[in-house]
Amino acid sequence: MSIDYDPKRFYEALVEHGHIVPVGVKGAFGRGAVFEDVLERFNDLVSEVAKDDGAETRTYPPIVNRHVIEKNGYLESFPHLCGTVFSFFGKELEAREMAQRAAAGESWSSHLGITDVCMTPAICYPLYPTLAGTLPAGGRLFSMLGWAYRHEPSDEPTRMQSFRMREFIRAGSADQVVEWRDMWLQRGLSLLRSLGLDANSDVASDPFFGRGGKMMAANQKDQRLKFEVLIPVISKENPTACCSFNFHQDHFGSKWGINTADGEVANTACLGFGLERIVMALFKTHGLEVARWPSEVRQRLWR
Amino acid sequence: MSIDYDPKRFYEALVEHGHIVPVGVKGAFGRGAVFEDVLERFNDLVSEVAKDDGAETRTYPPIVNRHVIEKNGYLESFPHLCGTVFSFFGKELEAREMAQRAAAGESWSSHLGITDVCMTPAICYPLYPTLAGTLPAGGRLFSMLGWAYRHEPSDEPTRMQSFRMREFIRAGSADQVVEWRDMWLQRGLSLLRSLGLDANSDVASDPFFGRGGKMMAANQKDQRLKFEVLIPVISKENPTACCSFNFHQDHFGSKWGINTADGEVANTACLGFGLERIVMALFKTHGLEVARWPSEVRQRLWR
Repeated sequence: MSIDYDPKRFYEALVEHGHIVPVGVKGAFGRGAVFEDVLERFNDLVSEVAKDDGAETRTYPPIVNRHVIEKNGYLESFPHLCGTVFSFFGKELEAREMAQRAAAGESWSSHLGITDVCMTPAICYPLYPTLAGTLPAGGRLFSMLGWAYRHEPSDEPTRMQSFRMREFIRAGSADQVVEWRDMWLQRGLSLLRSLGLDANSDVASDPFFGRGGKMMAANQKDQRLKFEVLIPVISKENPTACCSFNFHQDHFGSKWGINTADGEVANTACLGFGLERIVMALFKTHGLEVARWPSEVRQRLWR
Repeated sequence: MSIDYDPKRFYEALVEHGHIVPVGVKGAFGRGAVFEDVLERFNDLVSEVAKDDGAETRTYPPIVNRHVIEKNGYLESFPHLCGTVFSFFGKELEAREMAQRAAAGESWSSHLGITDVCMTPAICYPLYPTLAGTLPAGGRLFSMLGWAYRHEPSDEPTRMQSFRMREFIRAGSADQVVEWRDMWLQRGLSLLRSLGLDANSDVASDPFFGRGGKMMAANQKDQRLKFEVLIPVISKENPTACCSFNFHQDHFGSKWGINTADGEVANTACLGFGLERIVMALFKTHGLEVARWPSEVRQRLWR
């Protein structure tokens, strides 16, 4: 079967089949029942693979303390992706003026002020401050699922403003953390390939902002700090990152005072499955009707 | 067993037992594994009760098209609760200035501009625009789960900035919609009482802003448009709204051009279970250790 790669036609086909529902804003569409079912089944499969690892579970809302964004240096690396929540702090007269402006289609943003929260850009962000102190000898391991926000409106279906990541986070010594990351890189590949996906790993870099960012990206690649598992979804030549593995070295450990049992600054790593992207990869690879997916894929998801 | 009601001690007890994890911002805490397990089990129970209703499922991200907020009149009624996403639209030089300000603990909000999205204040908000047109004769019914945002930071554990609602939404004739709402009011009461909760319904009003809001609230009560199911969580005298039933009459139908098969403007109603609040009501009522909950409650949740 020859697959053609046209982002616009893929988007339209997802809409036609009720898998996504446009909302008039780029990258913020609704998900239909079948889309959600596949997403949940895949997430369950990840849980199944990880069930003996002993991860602790944490669930955070889609917002994060603004101080965490400021302290982690997110604004230095990704100022263009950050979402910050603003709200109204005024009294009745001003509220009426704001509502009237909004109703008249005029700008009302000058009435708003910054709140204490930003949109969570990565599911693991709220976790690190809570790890301050000394880790047990074996380090710690967490499992998290949540909504991430990135301000990159796009017509391309795999590039969303708001999407879910299933993440695992490991904190410990550099050796513990890297060994765990390497183990999951193989696991992630096997898991995605077992679903008939053309998944391949590669060294990668984050979309750092501006010219300075180019150097940071090059440095990140040189040090092999980031890997991705890529699957063709909207392009054969530029497959989509569906899984990301980040070794932070002691970045978060030093920021938040996380130490190993030996008294060293802790290292951390995280990995995330981009759940919506993996669902889209499955639709692209096996077709838009799940009833017609290969039986081995169906059996693996709907056990 | 005498229960005392002290919001601060209840919050601390939830933290001590690992059910919630503070993040340094009011009403944005993390949820522990047991909290999440109870929440998911309760949500499953709602699905079980509703399984033969034939609801369509939709899942939206925690953001909504800003135009929906403007057009629905949310800023007229709840300007103080609305969260709006701002982002950075500048170039490299300004980005550096913003990051430096943030790192120095100075204000950096002047570098941000309004985006096309707000925080979803009610799970059903993104749905109404997609119902434009003519409904089938029986109307339509939807099931949704999502994160809502309200800018009301509070030390009181049941008052959150970000929380999950399990919602059902009905669109059709006034009779269809009201009959359905009344049926669910009884269902909701039975369901919560079957879990040993001291649940009672009452006519209610929304927290409309300002002096003008007082009139809107009184009007809403007079017309019996809103009901709540209340459970004592942090106060015996002022029990907490854990479930909310809203009859919108033709508000959304006329805004978004939704018509019944007869050509009338459609009526809508929604109901929502405040999932975190119900979990907290269970902890308050049955204690902080789920293993020691009454066996009939455990059996109902962990089937």
